[in-house]
Amino acid sequence: MKGPGFDVDFFMKEALKQAHQAYNEGEVPVGAVVVCNEQIIAKSYNMTEKLQDVTAHAEILAITSASQYLGSKYLTDCTIYVTLEPCIMCAGAIHWGQLHKIVYGANDEKRGYTNYSEKILHNKTKVVAGIRKEECGELMTKFFKDKR
Amino acid sequence: MKGPGFDVDFFMKEALKQAHQAYNEGEVPVGAVVVCNEQIIAKSYNMTEKLQDVTAHAEILAITSASQYLGSKYLTDCTIYVTLEPCIMCAGAIHWGQLHKIVYGANDEKRGYTNYSEKILHNKTKVVAGIRKEECGELMTKFFKDKR
Repeated sequence: MKGPGFDVDFFMKEALKQAHQAYNEGEVPVGAVVVCNEQIIAKSYNMTEKLQDVTAHAEILAITSASQYLGSKYLTDCTIYVTLEPCIMCAGAIHWGQLHKIVYGANDEKRGYTNYSEKILHNKTKVVAGIRKEECGELMTKFFKDKR
Repeated sequence: MKGPGFDVDFFMKEALKQAHQAYNEGEVPVGAVVVCNEQIIAKSYNMTEKLQDVTAHAEILAITSASQYLGSKYLTDCTIYVTLEPCIMCAGAIHWGQLHKIVYGANDEKRGYTNYSEKILHNKTKVVAGIRKEECGELMTKFFKDKR
């Protein structure tokens, strides 16, 4: 049984599981899942420390993985769920991939793409912001507090 | 013997070799090299078709490769040479990697990062534009003309 908003919340919780995994591994805790036809086809979390690679953000890894799964560089039927507002690098990747929708949790007031231009995304890409934003944001706050 | 501008031109020619390789493989012809202490430590070209992955731009692949070579996600002593003005995805990656300098050839009037905001790059990153821009641009023009 699916009620209104069930899917969005469910998939964001899955992205949060990925973010917790990042946290447990000492990575900035951001997680993402890519959904196509109500199925998760890719999951990832930030691995910039593990891979020593600044491009290894959750979204970039999830987009690459989703494209491999589908055998297509365009993800026009896909939605990406990510716990934090994407940076411009990731928003750029979401643009190129022509994703149908992006759903994100917490705002990133410093590095989020909306600080630059909302036109960065493809004009067909829908945006839903603020899903489980407190939980997504608190995990980030906790991570940076632990670091101090 | 090194004269003024020798290095910049030499390294851009190396990036152009990568772009020609992309062209020969039916990829949008953009090439990049990463230079550290006057040595090329990474080379790459656009592989979005081959890998069916929108994130496989020349710069992203070159940054990942340079970080693997150095064992460091920060490329503060590196210069990236790229035949085309980076898009926002790649400019974002160059920001995160804190590269010392970016040298590019042709402008990308449609998708180049300067169409959005020059603040996308790290404030320490120097920018040199227009090196061999005709040659870099003509290769792009030829590619899209062939496609028609």
